[in-house]
Amino acid sequence: MTTTLGGPGALMASETAEQPAVWRRLLADSGPSGASGVDAAAALVRRRSPRFVLLVARGTSDHAALHAKYLVEITLGLPAGLVSPSTFTAYGARPDLRDVLMIAVSQSGGSPDLLRTLEVAKAGGALTVSVTNNAGSALATTADAHVDVLAGPERAVAATKSYTAQLLALYLLLGGAPSAAAPLPDLGAGVLDRDAEIAALATRYRFAERMITTGRGYSYPTAREAALKLMETAYVSAQAFSGADLLHGPLALVEPRVPVLAVVSAGPGGEAFRPVLDALAERHADVLTVGSAAVSTAGGAGAEIRLPETPDALAPLLEILPFQLLARHVAVDRGGDPDAPRGLRKVTETL
Amino acid sequence: MTTTLGGPGALMASETAEQPAVWRRLLADSGPSGASGVDAAAALVRRRSPRFVLLVARGTSDHAALHAKYLVEITLGLPAGLVSPSTFTAYGARPDLRDVLMIAVSQSGGSPDLLRTLEVAKAGGALTVSVTNNAGSALATTADAHVDVLAGPERAVAATKSYTAQLLALYLLLGGAPSAAAPLPDLGAGVLDRDAEIAALATRYRFAERMITTGRGYSYPTAREAALKLMETAYVSAQAFSGADLLHGPLALVEPRVPVLAVVSAGPGGEAFRPVLDALAERHADVLTVGSAAVSTAGGAGAEIRLPETPDALAPLLEILPFQLLARHVAVDRGGDPDAPRGLRKVTETL
Repeated sequence: MTTTLGGPGALMASETAEQPAVWRRLLADSGPSGASGVDAAAALVRRRSPRFVLLVARGTSDHAALHAKYLVEITLGLPAGLVSPSTFTAYGARPDLRDVLMIAVSQSGGSPDLLRTLEVAKAGGALTVSVTNNAGSALATTADAHVDVLAGPERAVAATKSYTAQLLALYLLLGGAPSAAAPLPDLGAGVLDRDAEIAALATRYRFAERMITTGRGYSYPTAREAALKLMETAYVSAQAFSGADLLHGPLALVEPRVPVLAVVSAGPGGEAFRPVLDALAERHADVLTVGSAAVSTAGGAGAEIRLPETPDALAPLLEILPFQLLARHVAVDRGGDPDAPRGLRKVTETL
Repeated sequence: MTTTLGGPGALMASETAEQPAVWRRLLADSGPSGASGVDAAAALVRRRSPRFVLLVARGTSDHAALHAKYLVEITLGLPAGLVSPSTFTAYGARPDLRDVLMIAVSQSGGSPDLLRTLEVAKAGGALTVSVTNNAGSALATTADAHVDVLAGPERAVAATKSYTAQLLALYLLLGGAPSAAAPLPDLGAGVLDRDAEIAALATRYRFAERMITTGRGYSYPTAREAALKLMETAYVSAQAFSGADLLHGPLALVEPRVPVLAVVSAGPGGEAFRPVLDALAERHADVLTVGSAAVSTAGGAGAEIRLPETPDALAPLLEILPFQLLARHVAVDRGGDPDAPRGLRKVTETL
């Protein structure tokens, strides 16, 4: 279904389309006086050389934080953890956080539980960095350093451009080379140009009540974010599993009438994912593979969306795009409005 | 439906029923020469006084590890993280882990990816402790210290007694007072005696294809494990969300025809969960509340299973019991065999 100006999903469509421009803006903003603050924040992190990294976020931003956790572990060689804010807010934990870097990730920068967590972390000795889309937010002004993802106002409830901007900002913050990311805007535009292909694919899933998304390593956050997009816009009961966890129990759920959406990129994560694809084929699953190592699965069920190859730490920027398009098309086809899903507000305040 | 000797679910039923005896065994095994090794491991951890704690596990054991993460953050006051084994196994990350305690949790102690992760951690300077149900396993013999959860052989594919034994062993390992846990076996036996009540409740969910489980703080791992039990035995598409995350997007999935199972205990986690119950009531959700603060929800939809009150760090031992019973009853009612779910083996080997 074509998305018309001002019609259901029009906001989400236009914000999805903006992503290459947002990435270009962020990549052009290098240097110590850049508006995003990413270089200054990265320099501060290097100076303080933390020994442990904690990340805190909610919803879509939590998937960007999960990506950052892989970056910290793999590229910085530091142990990392995702914080459950309730330990700080509800249980009053006051951990010793000297030598710890805490990164809070939030589109709005306004969630009270994240703010409280950051304050407690600061009091506990942590170096704090916030990554938001709102330089005037409480999270931005409270942290020792702030990174503005420069995505511009995001109005659709379903986050799209702020998510990939977070991925890119976190990559730059954690020492990723800007030069390796330079081709991303053009590659992203190429993927978004395949909207008609994705719209046709959406008809395949129009009547699916359940879906399973999966991926491994750097592609696992994409599987999580894809499931959330499908849940919040198209009300599909989409469950995300890391490839390895899928084999521990949830595989029992896989049957031919439950579509599986698998993110498979070239690189170690995609390699480690092969046994999962084999297990899915054994169960005659209907698998859509998305990524630079997307393959037709045995038996021919399913489909594939092959993406251009990039360094695997950057692949998630491209991988999520087809899912953003797919979720919107399925939602609109079903008569929903992904710009204003039932029961949701743009800024969710949890304590 | 009554579970008959040797019939579908008979193994799971008998192993579920053993739990109070398993807990008694573990609690009686105190002192530096105890067979479980928990006191010796706890003493080693105290001597080395780590500054960060990493946990690594898969499947059901991962939910015990998540519980341990809350214990570390709240009661030890240390930052903690759950490791993605793929960063060590697939991506070859070799982080600096001096001052780090790594705890590997596994029923079988045989998963190659956990073993590899533990080896890398040890080489990186971490103090390593494994918590397994098999003192002869590779994980047990590789770690600096091993805790045997003493659950005895577990033959049903769906883990029950090994899970609560892990919860209790981790509680003791991380400094929990054995005296506070002393009433647990009798309380657990009382909950398990309510099998007929749960069997009757199972008829309510017989035709449910989807379910949502939720909880906050210490009760969140219970929501995760409840969902996994329902998935792997009854093939219900059960999705677990922390209460706060549920409000960030997945709330759009909640509608009267999708049952919600909420874990609500007395204490800060349960208190922080109140706004979630309000949001569910607003959406006319059908909510089953389970826990020491279980309440009938507004409008009277749903049901409740009120459990005895315990210190909240121990509540998950009791909270999971009704879900183990419920999953088995729903599975058997639907003609399945929870002792041997389709597509699963007892020991899942992921690399």
